[in-house]
Amino acid sequence: MRALRVGDRTSLVEVPIPVADGEALVRVTLSGICNTDLELARGYMGFRGTLGHELVGVVEQGGGAIPNGTRVVCEINAGCGSCALCLTGDSRHCPTRTVMGIVGRDGAHADYVRIPARNLIAVPDQISDRQAVFVEPLAAALGILERCPISGERVAIIGDGKLGLLIAMALAEHRPLLIGKHPSKLKLAPVDSVLLDHARGPFDIVIEASGTADGFTLALDLLRPQGSLVLKSTFAGATPVDAARIVVNEIRVIGSRCGRFAPALARLPHVSVDRLISDQLSIDHAEQALVDATKPGVLKVLLAR
Amino acid sequence: MRALRVGDRTSLVEVPIPVADGEALVRVTLSGICNTDLELARGYMGFRGTLGHELVGVVEQGGGAIPNGTRVVCEINAGCGSCALCLTGDSRHCPTRTVMGIVGRDGAHADYVRIPARNLIAVPDQISDRQAVFVEPLAAALGILERCPISGERVAIIGDGKLGLLIAMALAEHRPLLIGKHPSKLKLAPVDSVLLDHARGPFDIVIEASGTADGFTLALDLLRPQGSLVLKSTFAGATPVDAARIVVNEIRVIGSRCGRFAPALARLPHVSVDRLISDQLSIDHAEQALVDATKPGVLKVLLAR
Repeated sequence: MRALRVGDRTSLVEVPIPVADGEALVRVTLSGICNTDLELARGYMGFRGTLGHELVGVVEQGGGAIPNGTRVVCEINAGCGSCALCLTGDSRHCPTRTVMGIVGRDGAHADYVRIPARNLIAVPDQISDRQAVFVEPLAAALGILERCPISGERVAIIGDGKLGLLIAMALAEHRPLLIGKHPSKLKLAPVDSVLLDHARGPFDIVIEASGTADGFTLALDLLRPQGSLVLKSTFAGATPVDAARIVVNEIRVIGSRCGRFAPALARLPHVSVDRLISDQLSIDHAEQALVDATKPGVLKVLLAR
Repeated sequence: MRALRVGDRTSLVEVPIPVADGEALVRVTLSGICNTDLELARGYMGFRGTLGHELVGVVEQGGGAIPNGTRVVCEINAGCGSCALCLTGDSRHCPTRTVMGIVGRDGAHADYVRIPARNLIAVPDQISDRQAVFVEPLAAALGILERCPISGERVAIIGDGKLGLLIAMALAEHRPLLIGKHPSKLKLAPVDSVLLDHARGPFDIVIEASGTADGFTLALDLLRPQGSLVLKSTFAGATPVDAARIVVNEIRVIGSRCGRFAPALARLPHVSVDRLISDQLSIDHAEQALVDATKPGVLKVLLAR
């Protein structure tokens, strides 16, 4: 089968179809390129293997209670199944977890992917493949509310890339202000927006989704004393942080990574994720798609089979 | 009068006694040297003026409801008195505040200090001067509980300097583990302790009181996923922080600065702050005292009048 793999370089290669070996085998229909893929291809976290953790597909075998042929999405964290966290139904922080296409487990930019059957969630008919492929990033966006409940606070989001836009869409009911560099991107979100240089605080909560040290500094500038800075994007390397500002202004910095798939799936029909799709290529052009995804103005690039 | 002032260098100089000018004038009896004083003397926050924000003294004039001659301690944040924060009785984050010996206001390493009368709190007879001078750092230690309530969690404190030790004393009922480099210091706190190299997690809450980037990294090592890192010490300059670890493990970094004086004063008789006093010198030897305070093994150095 075809697989986009990180090795000495990142390339599309032919590899054997994985053996299910007690897990489910999913035939991938559509997968989405995430900024984390780009970071991993650059060496972040030392990942080697097949990239990809945003997908929709069809159960080929081993789906347990989910019959073969069912259209599914897959929770990406595969826990041990027996630690305290896994037993409470939350494998996202299982200390020995693998993560599809990110940590110790091949990902979904391939024709097939293997994942524990308990990670599968059936996709309702009214949700298209091009919507369903957004369930992982939408879950991550909604995950912010698990870590930092919002109820009437003044909220800003920094970053008009696909992550920032998706967060703005997911949290639209809380009327956040979206702050970014690109008028053409800002207008895609159903919320008020402002260009970076014109952003003025104070806000009670600022969500940093630009993945830059400058974004972190701007967030500190815009927060009221004792405000909350939600740190959403992952990036490689150490960021210089003015720790004294966090202490003096008694800021709360809240890391937020993954969310839950079931509520995200229920929400998908009400979020205009289609606006975020810049292009859809055959997986045969996966290497080109990775390059395209880094270009200015490009949002989500999908890989079809 | 004598005053230890930061200028082109930090030195003990003769200056006029301040004019009360609508505020209270306090004759300082005893003041304590804080690490922040040492940072300010090195240029932190660009402070120029008289150092010192830990004191006990006697009202000389202008104390309002507090009669002249009363022994007092002084809240160090002087708010505008009219903004929303000041009107709720919390001037600690007033945007135009001055802070005694730290921001835009002369401090207490002098014979007299000026402060708004509303900042004065009378000291009960059963509290000695050598105890009362600890009310500001004890309030700061107890302030952790305002930002990060503790109720049965596994807590560690990193740093066996005077700040870490005082936090350990203040939070002793929560049975924190104190982590430090110096057996002689660790044993001063009424809690379990361990040397740095032998510290093992996971903890639900880690309080960073070493003021070092290494302490921050160790705190991340020791925290469970979704744990809380209380950042307590202020220091100059940018700290390299592995932001991805905060996101991936969904850590909450909580800045904590000042606390409230009244509850700290009530608590003082039950905390063995006297163990933290390394030396007491006349203010005539203030310059030497600043040097002494940086020496290995030295904890609190007091300046007497």
